[in-house]
Amino acid sequence: MGNLSPFLDNGQYTVIYNMLSLGIASMLFTALFLFMARDRVLPRYRMAVMVSATVTSIAAYHYFRMFDDFKHAFGTDGMGVVAYNVGYRYVDWFLTVPLLMLETVAVLALARSVQKSMMYKLVPAAALMIALGYPGDARLDIMGISPSVWGALSTIPFLYILYVLFVELGKSLERQSAAVREKIRLLRLLLLATWGVYPISFIMNMNATGFDPASFVARETGYTIADILAKCLFGLMIFTIARIKSAEDSPEHAKAEYGS
Amino acid sequence: MGNLSPFLDNGQYTVIYNMLSLGIASMLFTALFLFMARDRVLPRYRMAVMVSATVTSIAAYHYFRMFDDFKHAFGTDGMGVVAYNVGYRYVDWFLTVPLLMLETVAVLALARSVQKSMMYKLVPAAALMIALGYPGDARLDIMGISPSVWGALSTIPFLYILYVLFVELGKSLERQSAAVREKIRLLRLLLLATWGVYPISFIMNMNATGFDPASFVARETGYTIADILAKCLFGLMIFTIARIKSAEDSPEHAKAEYGS
Repeated sequence: MGNLSPFLDNGQYTVIYNMLSLGIASMLFTALFLFMARDRVLPRYRMAVMVSATVTSIAAYHYFRMFDDFKHAFGTDGMGVVAYNVGYRYVDWFLTVPLLMLETVAVLALARSVQKSMMYKLVPAAALMIALGYPGDARLDIMGISPSVWGALSTIPFLYILYVLFVELGKSLERQSAAVREKIRLLRLLLLATWGVYPISFIMNMNATGFDPASFVARETGYTIADILAKCLFGLMIFTIARIKSAEDSPEHAKAEYGS
Repeated sequence: MGNLSPFLDNGQYTVIYNMLSLGIASMLFTALFLFMARDRVLPRYRMAVMVSATVTSIAAYHYFRMFDDFKHAFGTDGMGVVAYNVGYRYVDWFLTVPLLMLETVAVLALARSVQKSMMYKLVPAAALMIALGYPGDARLDIMGISPSVWGALSTIPFLYILYVLFVELGKSLERQSAAVREKIRLLRLLLLATWGVYPISFIMNMNATGFDPASFVARETGYTIADILAKCLFGLMIFTIARIKSAEDSPEHAKAEYGS
């Protein structure tokens, strides 16, 4: 076996290659499962499940692109002419992170005015957070602003989102059952834990001067694991909450789905 | 006809090529059938059928990748630069083996507390078994640990899974009908027989020094046949159990599906 890549050693190349393929498989088949599984919940919760399926579908598309892009940029046929495009990740997040906010709010089936007000806060903040992160991670030279400044700017909407989810949304949870509140608590913790990976990966890459293979591998692995947890596991938890709430709302549904 | 491959003779190349294509066809169309067929069972058994369809879908994706990868690594255009990536099989198993545990438990429609406790034992054990096998089969050099040690470590969760399925799950089967118990017995025997192929293939490859075409062919053929039985046949048996249990649970369903 010769060298798989002119820029990475065979172990590094194989790790990223397999992580990106794991990303494709996780996203694609979570999406397929959730689209199929939407009938397993009451109609009022299907929108949340379908948005979860859409999020993982969008991510599957971008992982296909990143996989091909990685092979082309780092494999033996790329010859170093092509640069690996971090834009795929940011276009993906720009579309999916606002939708993740939407599915979180939608699954609660809150009063429509409360739901609307939550959306108006969370969706634009999520889009802004991603838009401000991109110039830093892609090292675009916009008026000489350094990556760390973009990182700091992006943190402002991030903190606002946490405030809305943990403080404002918290108030709306009082009317939910204990089982649902418990799942929502886990959902927010998962969000906090996985979203924490992105700034860490961002900062690790920010401090590298030139191209550093080890921090590149760490960044791509970190982003991929965080993505799988924040989209696939998150979407499946949304589905579980929708299942619990469907059974709570309708004894007939519970009997058909669980036999008791 | 010239040489199909610089590394394998024409017979060896053709065997693997056709086995991988058989893998694609088996996985893809079992998945399609099961997704379509989920309405043929009562709602409470559809989750098990949908998980079976998801498992074969994930495997179909990986067989497409392996087929292309094999042609590229061993065909005349690869020129020995590209290595055949055993990672695809392990990423596939890492996702599908825990899901196979899930479908086995889900189809029984056990009491929810029993189901939950079974999942918490079987799913992490299955993931751990695969994660421990990979470094041995891929011959990764991690702290100089030899492939046989990884194989032995991976056997511990394997034996634990067998214990849970044959001893603990056995207790939950008493309340099932004779027809269902008979099918579950067959299901577990199929699992034991097919899962037995993986360690044999692993060991055959472990003892080969350098690249040995004959053990490579034996390994790929063994893995593929075991995969088809453990996922397609297994999934179709899950579907059959769901059909039997649906008819047992509901005379209306039995009449609609079988006319009597």
